[in-house]
Formats: sequence, C-alpha cells, structure tokens
Amino acid sequence: MEKVILNVDGMSCEHCVKAVNGAVGALPGVSGVVVDLEGKTVAVEFDASKVSVDEIKAEIEDQGYDVVA
Amino acid sequence: MEKVILNVDGMSCEHCVKAVNGAVGALPGVSGVVVDLEGKTVAVEFDASKVSVDEIKAEIEDQGYDVVA
Repeated sequence: MEKVILNVDGMSCEHCVKAVNGAVGALPGVSGVVVDLEGKTVAVEFDASKVSVDEIKAEIEDQGYDVVA
Repeated sequence: MEKVILNVDGMSCEHCVKAVNGAVGALPGVSGVVVDLEGKTVAVEFDASKVSVDEIKAEIEDQGYDVVA
C-alpha cells in the first residue's frame, strides 16, 4: 500500500469533497481517500499494483479540478 | 405565476447550482429556477397558490445556503 498527497485547486465546497471522494474512492486499488478542503489536498492510499498516481490524478482532473502538484 | 429573485450566499460551484436547482425545482408549484452562480441569485417562477416565497427560502436554507434578501 502506498500513499500520495496531491495538491488540488478548485474544490470549493462539501459537494466537491464528495465528488472527489466518490470518484477517487471508486478506482480499483484505492483503499482510502481524505480530502482536505481548506488545505486543498487529496490524500490517497492505494495499491500501486492496481492503480497509478497518474490514473488517480486523471480521475480528479476528470471531475473538473486541477492537480497542481 | 409569480417570480422572485433571491440573493443567496454560499453557492460556490456547479454542484451548488445543481443542489439548489434540484431542491427548489422539486417544490410543488415551482415551474422554473435559474441559479446565477456569479451574480449570487436564484430566480424562481412559481404558483403562489401552491408555494410561498418563505417556503422557497426555507428550501434554499435547508440546502445549506444563506438567503440574504
């Protein structure tokens, strides 16, 4: 299990938190997601044999947010 | 049919627009809702014999937003 903390722009409210949480959490291999609205971060615990950081980033971008780091 | 334009604080993204649109649009007697995210307004067309402005305001507040006027 690995962990990555991504800086994400554009999450403005609890609906955004739910959208990111739901989308990233539904990815195969993802076992945990913590979205920090104020800190603008998304922490993801994942199994690197099943999903990549790039796929996680792409999912967040697909939801309409910008992964800045 | 009457029309009211309410000033609403706290709507920050398209998810909020959907939440307000869906909730207010589901009220009996409401025939139209236009949410302006940038202008912070919610315009509602409604049948005053079926729903009151106070009920519309309450529904918006229930969704977590502040009706300021």
